[in-house]
Amino acid sequence: MMKSRSSFLAELIGTMSLLMAVIGSGVMAERLSSGNIGLALLANTLTTVFALYVLIEIFSSISGAHFNPVVSLVMLLRGDLKFVNFCSYICAQLSGAILGAWLVHLMFNMPIFQLSTHVRFGVGQFFAEALATAGLLIVILLSPKGKTSSLVACYIGAAYWFTASTSFANPAAVVGRMLSDSFAGIAPSSSLFFITAEIAGALSGWGIYKLFHTMDASRDIAT
Amino acid sequence: MMKSRSSFLAELIGTMSLLMAVIGSGVMAERLSSGNIGLALLANTLTTVFALYVLIEIFSSISGAHFNPVVSLVMLLRGDLKFVNFCSYICAQLSGAILGAWLVHLMFNMPIFQLSTHVRFGVGQFFAEALATAGLLIVILLSPKGKTSSLVACYIGAAYWFTASTSFANPAAVVGRMLSDSFAGIAPSSSLFFITAEIAGALSGWGIYKLFHTMDASRDIAT
Amino acid sequence: MMKSRSSFLAELIGTMSLLMAVIGSGVMAERLSSGNIGLALLANTLTTVFALYVLIEIFSSISGAHFNPVVSLVMLLRGDLKFVNFCSYICAQLSGAILGAWLVHLMFNMPIFQLSTHVRFGVGQFFAEALATAGLLIVILLSPKGKTSSLVACYIGAAYWFTASTSFANPAAVVGRMLSDSFAGIAPSSSLFFITAEIAGALSGWGIYKLFHTMDASRDIAT
Amino acid sequence: MMKSRSSFLAELIGTMSLLMAVIGSGVMAERLSSGNIGLALLANTLTTVFALYVLIEIFSSISGAHFNPVVSLVMLLRGDLKFVNFCSYICAQLSGAILGAWLVHLMFNMPIFQLSTHVRFGVGQFFAEALATAGLLIVILLSPKGKTSSLVACYIGAAYWFTASTSFANPAAVVGRMLSDSFAGIAPSSSLFFITAEIAGALSGWGIYKLFHTMDASRDIAT
Repeated sequence: MMKSRSSFLAELIGTMSLLMAVIGSGVMAERLSSGNIGLALLANTLTTVFALYVLIEIFSSISGAHFNPVVSLVMLLRGDLKFVNFCSYICAQLSGAILGAWLVHLMFNMPIFQLSTHVRFGVGQFFAEALATAGLLIVILLSPKGKTSSLVACYIGAAYWFTASTSFANPAAVVGRMLSDSFAGIAPSSSLFFITAEIAGALSGWGIYKLFHTMDASRDIAT
Repeated sequence: MMKSRSSFLAELIGTMSLLMAVIGSGVMAERLSSGNIGLALLANTLTTVFALYVLIEIFSSISGAHFNPVVSLVMLLRGDLKFVNFCSYICAQLSGAILGAWLVHLMFNMPIFQLSTHVRFGVGQFFAEALATAGLLIVILLSPKGKTSSLVACYIGAAYWFTASTSFANPAAVVGRMLSDSFAGIAPSSSLFFITAEIAGALSGWGIYKLFHTMDASRDIAT
Repeated sequence: MMKSRSSFLAELIGTMSLLMAVIGSGVMAERLSSGNIGLALLANTLTTVFALYVLIEIFSSISGAHFNPVVSLVMLLRGDLKFVNFCSYICAQLSGAILGAWLVHLMFNMPIFQLSTHVRFGVGQFFAEALATAGLLIVILLSPKGKTSSLVACYIGAAYWFTASTSFANPAAVVGRMLSDSFAGIAPSSSLFFITAEIAGALSGWGIYKLFHTMDASRDIAT
Repeated sequence: MMKSRSSFLAELIGTMSLLMAVIGSGVMAERLSSGNIGLALLANTLTTVFALYVLIEIFSSISGAHFNPVVSLVMLLRGDLKFVNFCSYICAQLSGAILGAWLVHLMFNMPIFQLSTHVRFGVGQFFAEALATAGLLIVILLSPKGKTSSLVACYIGAAYWFTASTSFANPAAVVGRMLSDSFAGIAPSSSLFFITAEIAGALSGWGIYKLFHTMDASRDIAT
């Protein structure tokens, strides 16, 4: 049974913490890596992997640990989340993401209100972001019970490097990153473009998951 | 049932080993990374993550594996630790932290007695350190059974990078690091400042944990 | 009972994703590491480890998660895979590997059709590649139940660094990498050489595994 | 019941593989890291952690996965290993270590027979190596059931960085590394010095472990 008020708080704190990890480690890594972007992305990757694993472990029994509007969307379409809760999850996730960006700026003595100037655009970026999000949904939907935390964390850790977009795969992350003119940022002009790719990717991922199930249901027992 | 004498020894050896890992890997990383601070912090992070995981696993059945006065403080407030044991834990943790710093200096042929000159101060640092400690307590209190070791280790690994203070989150670590004029050090003049932030953070973290429980107790069963 | 159609899809998507991870992270790492090959291989290693762990976890209950013709070959020889399924696995793995290379090029705005010019040859390389593949098979065959995903991932992560060939250990990976003129590529002229070494290694690995079993069966009970 | 012949083979192959991982990744890392020793040690560390985890997992049910004469020594003293098996374990471990070094040289096209010129000496090194080995034994003896593989791997990963000697903690590793004039090597003149420190450390570690048990047995039930 879903706990409606604590699940809102869990999605808010969880998404806020996730964005703090992503943006904060980006700021720290950029400051310390003396121009070596590869090293900065490596630190950014490990921080995100650790944070995702911890956040999904501690909040999954409270809210399901979505922290991601397109994950909530697929759960709504599957019938695992009521529409009223879907709306409250989206609110919590977007508010959390915005708060997370601002708290990083507060900690690192940067101006609180910023907009990223990092333009991310093009066919390769769209395709990469859709593919990253499709992969995320397939991983979530096919995860063996109790393994979602480590699998999602490791998947995102890999996708930071193998997709051309460094795999945001999360519209709430896009919103938070849009508000930070730092390593992990994305220009507002690119954000709708990324979110569109993510929604397309999430629905494709769900489709591929259902393809596996359809095949199994009608399988020939030849083997 | 708490084993009173072996738990003192476990807290002492555990905190000593933790500080050796934190300070020793800082010294080694600074020596080997030819001025690349990002690389040094990465090595420092992985060492701390590995050490925390191992120490919590092997000592949790003996002493609960606090290694941290503010963790013991919250356990005292929750009624999970008697006051007399709380006092003995604090003694063991502080002695262990001091010993850990000194043993590192012995191994690396450095002067045994040192004081750090690394000033860490400011609003951002206070807020970062409070937030890091609040997060640590929330992670400990919400950890599923048997997962505390990996969750605390990964949380600290992330917090080294996403908080502006590199997340000490532990007054015993502050005391040990104060006695080492190396990569991981903190000037004595900044130490009370950090410890205050950590106590404030720990109590906030406990408060947020209780908020989740209050909400669940009074939850509407609408979902 | 094997699910014949969904297992084909799982081998195809799994091998495609594995090659995307290997080649894509190679491209990304080469672009970001400003000539530091060690850093690039480190990023390439972590991405491969994360990807292998995730892919084996989510697809092992569907197809056994081979993603590797010599693994399927040993399973055929052991009688764990029918010949007709072996053929379909090989098709799925090779098609997936080729698709994976091409999708990386699409994402990163590179020419889709390429051939690697990275010659990998010599006695040391042959021996390294045979040894890497023998080790992979021994790890798979001796893995305790439920640990194959993490053991194979960690094994390959180690073998990237300790073998002179950076451990392809997979003919499908050779085919995919042959089609990408990037960090992780291998020249077509070296590919048959590598595949021969891998087949020899896989059979040796299987032989060593059987040696352990023979010894146990006929063991003296002296101890 | 110990399987006498397959346990010999397991200790030989396991120690050989461990030394290949340690020395091979050292050679590879030195070649690729363009003089950045910190980066080389990071790659060396991750390779060793992955290799230890895999080797202990796959061989622990066959031989107990010692791969280390001082571990076998403590098991002999505890009565967990017969003297005749202890002798055969030591033979297997030393032969494996030597073979491992030579196989690395074969793979990397280096002269097979070498002696390291890397002198490692001094009070700090002795103390570091004793402490590293004491810690290893405490970790092994206090490991919860089924966790030895990940705890030993993570412990060694941390100890590579926090001890001044980069934690060999294994006389068989000393012998293998002595035969390789590369990153991970140790000069023959320093080897007896290291082995003495390791034996002293192992016995101290066992003593500290027994101290915990004595305390628990005679504990006051005040808490």
